[in-house]
Amino acid sequence: MKVLNKIHRLANKADYSKAKAYKIIDRSLISHVSFVDDGNPISIPMAHWRIGDYVYFHSANKGRFSKVTIGKGVCVSMAEVTGLVLARSAFEHTYNYTSVILHGVLEDVQDEDEKRESLRQFVERLYPGRWEELRPINDAELCATKVLRLPIEVFACKERECGSGPDDGLDEPDLAVWTGVIPIRKRVGSPVRDETNAHEVEEPSYLEHIRNSFEV
Amino acid sequence: MKVLNKIHRLANKADYSKAKAYKIIDRSLISHVSFVDDGNPISIPMAHWRIGDYVYFHSANKGRFSKVTIGKGVCVSMAEVTGLVLARSAFEHTYNYTSVILHGVLEDVQDEDEKRESLRQFVERLYPGRWEELRPINDAELCATKVLRLPIEVFACKERECGSGPDDGLDEPDLAVWTGVIPIRKRVGSPVRDETNAHEVEEPSYLEHIRNSFEV
Repeated sequence: MKVLNKIHRLANKADYSKAKAYKIIDRSLISHVSFVDDGNPISIPMAHWRIGDYVYFHSANKGRFSKVTIGKGVCVSMAEVTGLVLARSAFEHTYNYTSVILHGVLEDVQDEDEKRESLRQFVERLYPGRWEELRPINDAELCATKVLRLPIEVFACKERECGSGPDDGLDEPDLAVWTGVIPIRKRVGSPVRDETNAHEVEEPSYLEHIRNSFEV
Repeated sequence: MKVLNKIHRLANKADYSKAKAYKIIDRSLISHVSFVDDGNPISIPMAHWRIGDYVYFHSANKGRFSKVTIGKGVCVSMAEVTGLVLARSAFEHTYNYTSVILHGVLEDVQDEDEKRESLRQFVERLYPGRWEELRPINDAELCATKVLRLPIEVFACKERECGSGPDDGLDEPDLAVWTGVIPIRKRVGSPVRDETNAHEVEEPSYLEHIRNSFEV
């Protein structure tokens, strides 16, 4: 079988540990899921969540995505730029970033209880405690939703650590040019209340959780 | 020929205008470029920049990427989550986001002057004025770098506008649950000077430009 996850470029930045993959997956809000449709590469941005050793996705039951991808090979890519790196030469300019690329076959989660439980975990991952506060999911909604999952088995992480400075060679001329890192941050803003909601509910308690989970 | 860029899901959020595509491309720091290698979908996060009607990428001259993709169909996907949308039902929870998906064939920019000029524009797009301050790019660097470009012709943008609230149906029960939007922001942090640089250069003047260009 062809090895799909070997990193060739800047191989010293590769990491094949699950702990690293989990961390990147859990901190990412979005995936790019690519697949082959009729010979063409197609990539679709999708929300994801992780339960144990699987990355989960959901889509419309009758949509193209599930029709084309279930049981087929996909590649899932997540990446975050954490800084702009400014060197003395154009060539050494780069980004600081974290990324993970996963390869595998998408499985269809068909069992209703399992589907419901995985959707509960999707909500709870973002908003702990919220599932119980919501109007319960109904059969029509469950039926309209496809839940798919990818085993976290074949993957590669890559990182240029947030804060790493430029790698100028020692023979670079001593130019009076600013060099260093301009950080790029992901920040959670102040919640904006839905004004059609008549209830004066306090700001959600999971705001702190969201900040801790996703801010970079 | 198969139509690759028709949006089927939530088609009311689709936008096929170039102005919109330019805006999303220019504000994105990273692309996910997918292609088919030996029948397998592969997706790679890459930096990009735009000149006119083309999205540009660069890669190592001898790397797999250029070998596999030049003259072949690729799909380029960029997406940014701008908010978490909290509704009364789990089903109506969503993200606010902007995305653009482009399809096409990658062209190899072979002419040396054109290559150099496109790399200049890559640097200048991020840091106006910097190209002239840097140690000039040399022949070995230019030779080691492949510049590729994709025409912006077949594409689709999709957006759930930053700030859009939940779409709860009118028949939702009147629950005392917080509903609204939690914004997700991209922010440019304070520059961190490279301490190995002996020159006490002022903070780069393009910081404001970077904030205006990329902050969300």
